Amino acid sequence: MKAKIFLALGLLVSCFATDLYAQTETAIEQQKNWMVRLAKIEIDTLYLKQYRAAIQEQAKAALELEPGVLTLYAMYDKTHPERVTVLEIYASKEAYQLHIKKAHFLKYKTGTLHMVKSLELVDVEPIAFRTKPNLWGTGE
Amino acid sequence: MKAKIFLALGLLVSCFATDLYAQTETAIEQQKNWMVRLAKIEIDTLYLKQYRAAIQEQAKAALELEPGVLTLYAMYDKTHPERVTVLEIYASKEAYQLHIKKAHFLKYKTGTLHMVKSLELVDVEPIAFRTKPNLWGTGE
Repeated sequence: MKAKIFLALGLLVSCFATDLYAQTETAIEQQKNWMVRLAKIEIDTLYLKQYRAAIQEQAKAALELEPGVLTLYAMYDKTHPERVTVLEIYASKEAYQLHIKKAHFLKYKTGTLHMVKSLELVDVEPIAFRTKPNLWGTGE
Repeated sequence: MKAKIFLALGLLVSCFATDLYAQTETAIEQQKNWMVRLAKIEIDTLYLKQYRAAIQEQAKAALELEPGVLTLYAMYDKTHPERVTVLEIYASKEAYQLHIKKAHFLKYKTGTLHMVKSLELVDVEPIAFRTKPNLWGTGE
């Protein structure tokens, strides 16, 4: 099996080595258009479970269906489970505008309106965004 | 070139198909040990540039040198550039304890002490962490 792997890897490297470099350049160029945001949300403690289910459903749909939704990381403070933070990365402002018109977003928005006590949207600028490759097993 | 690619991919799939499934299971198991945190830092406006350079250097070193440092996303509020947020993901509490003893971390910590006006560390629990695969071009 080892020989097969080496042969396969050798073939792949020979095909893609130049392309990979070009892709990295393109990726850096594309990142300049990104819209990155922190949403700070306070949830009514009566609805913590329902809210979490709703945002899980919306994040799954957005990432699977929308090419322009790049990252949605939703988390809650361990000592204040009613405080939720969402790191949102969109490919561009246009991608965000498309996102907020989608059925899954509108379902989440209207479905959780009565659960949300406050919402603050903070536009941010990356200083350093570093992560291990393939952090999510299959790449998700 | 197409034939070469198909041959290579075929060989790889035959080698790794079962392994990949096992890896995904392992990844989910490992995520249970993760330590995820938001650091909320207020910087003296006199030192914004120096602070950004310091955290860039420390994040690069930590991700390259430490297997247990999985993600460091540092960002600042566009309307309040003195407000910095860092999303930190460590493989485990032990990985974090190792991290804060490393030379690059200590250099950052002592080197920026006079720039930091306040620091709040918030331990968080992921609700939904979704991202596109290969968001960072080469996987970084």
